Amino acid sequence: MNKIRAAIVGYGNIGQYVLDAIIASPDFEVAGIVRRDPSNVPDELKKYQVVQSIKELKDVSVAVLCTPTRSVEEYAKECLALGINTVDSYDIHGGIVNLRRELDAVGKANNTVSIISAGWDPGTDSMIRSMFEFMAPKGVTYTNFGPGMSMGHTVAVKAIKGVKAALSMTIPLGTSIHRRMVYIEVEEGFNFSDVASAIKSDDYFAHDETHVMQVENVDNLKDMGHGVNMVRKGVSGATQNQLLDFNMKINNPALTAQVLVASARATMKQAPGAYTMIEVPVIDYIYGDKEALIKKLV
Amino acid sequence: MNKIRAAIVGYGNIGQYVLDAIIASPDFEVAGIVRRDPSNVPDELKKYQVVQSIKELKDVSVAVLCTPTRSVEEYAKECLALGINTVDSYDIHGGIVNLRRELDAVGKANNTVSIISAGWDPGTDSMIRSMFEFMAPKGVTYTNFGPGMSMGHTVAVKAIKGVKAALSMTIPLGTSIHRRMVYIEVEEGFNFSDVASAIKSDDYFAHDETHVMQVENVDNLKDMGHGVNMVRKGVSGATQNQLLDFNMKINNPALTAQVLVASARATMKQAPGAYTMIEVPVIDYIYGDKEALIKKLV
Repeated sequence: MNKIRAAIVGYGNIGQYVLDAIIASPDFEVAGIVRRDPSNVPDELKKYQVVQSIKELKDVSVAVLCTPTRSVEEYAKECLALGINTVDSYDIHGGIVNLRRELDAVGKANNTVSIISAGWDPGTDSMIRSMFEFMAPKGVTYTNFGPGMSMGHTVAVKAIKGVKAALSMTIPLGTSIHRRMVYIEVEEGFNFSDVASAIKSDDYFAHDETHVMQVENVDNLKDMGHGVNMVRKGVSGATQNQLLDFNMKINNPALTAQVLVASARATMKQAPGAYTMIEVPVIDYIYGDKEALIKKLV
Repeated sequence: MNKIRAAIVGYGNIGQYVLDAIIASPDFEVAGIVRRDPSNVPDELKKYQVVQSIKELKDVSVAVLCTPTRSVEEYAKECLALGINTVDSYDIHGGIVNLRRELDAVGKANNTVSIISAGWDPGTDSMIRSMFEFMAPKGVTYTNFGPGMSMGHTVAVKAIKGVKAALSMTIPLGTSIHRRMVYIEVEEGFNFSDVASAIKSDDYFAHDETHVMQVENVDNLKDMGHGVNMVRKGVSGATQNQLLDFNMKINNPALTAQVLVASARATMKQAPGAYTMIEVPVIDYIYGDKEALIKKLV
């Protein structure tokens, strides 16, 4: 079997779990790891090539982008132009349509495939939301996150001046309303209430009830468990009160990483261009023979 | 807008709900209804063409097959050969791979598309099971049905000699184990215990704990509510204890019919051939502009 050669771009929280997921997938092998500082090689990376640019790696089929969401577009365009498929977990909901357009053009011009916003929300939750929509076209779906640490929101807090360390917890209040509990360590020379104001006015937080708290040690509060409850009450045809409900309790970066690797697999089966997860057949994310999967899963 | 012209083939339980779902879908119109006895025209069909053969209808884009599962293959082949796409809710899990092969060949030869086994199980449950599989590739998924009336099982009971009327209820016992509670009226001249034995040895019932009971009036017991609980505890990468859980409580034929109509829509967007629901992008089942849907749902 020709294995899918995946490069991990960025080796932070998600990147480490992506390595686990690649190792656990029989159809994948590690092409290498791309880091800003390639001399930083922890034990588990000793047997792989660690480089500063993806151009230094050979025969890469797909790049799993584990960079901050705001640098996804730049890295993805570079990879797609080099003939390398990409997946990312870009999580700014308002920017997805535009990112898809941009990467679609680059993918089509270079015969490469990109699956964007491939995590759990956006990602697998989007698939469930879409299924709810065609199962009961009239109605409202509520997506209730947490309680759990939001990776995207935590990164957003860390980007704010004066924040030394941060944790953003998402608390579900029902009917898609959430409270943000933000715990920070403040850098010396910065004023806590100025930093708190800056956080609250950031686009990630401006629309939710947000509480910012200063703590001595953020790390002691961290647990990467997370969850979601998605619920819809809707109408199928003319029939009311169709009740749909999805719940999960998961290790957040582990699920994101697993979905990224499943999406990396799916890039190998699509026509050139860029896709969100709802545009790709479910079976394409799974390892195995097509008829055997149909027999087992349908 | 060019509407999708759908023919309803078979106007029993499911067929009536399919009519509701077509009427509620802005991109569909009714091309006509095919019945064994086209002179049987209830009030709600008075404004439509009711015919004995689909050949009598004009410009049919897609036939929604609401016939018993065992006659799906024959009707589907006839329609596909006539240049008409098909959808069905074929529900014999062991026969799906073969039906797909058969219809795939006919579809490809005639430039038509078939989506098979499009209901909720097989159907949307299959999509959820498949998602669970790539989200946590190691683990076990349990599908727990009910309590509710099983359409497929009820039809199977009705097909047995000596059964005048029947209702088969599915009771979930957990870990994918089910009890079948079968209520029947016995035809005159037949012996209840012979009929009960025939039911228990039918392929639909042979593998489950089955209780057959004789009642005066089956109709008084009927409620078309149904439900499912699908639960998986699995591993993402190297991370254990990922907990996934899907629940629904629904009107069974209404959901089946809505999924059939969503699948009829999706047939218009696939390359010729036959597909199960897990082989079709989720977005293709939904009415609306692609980018608008991505913006709303991803």
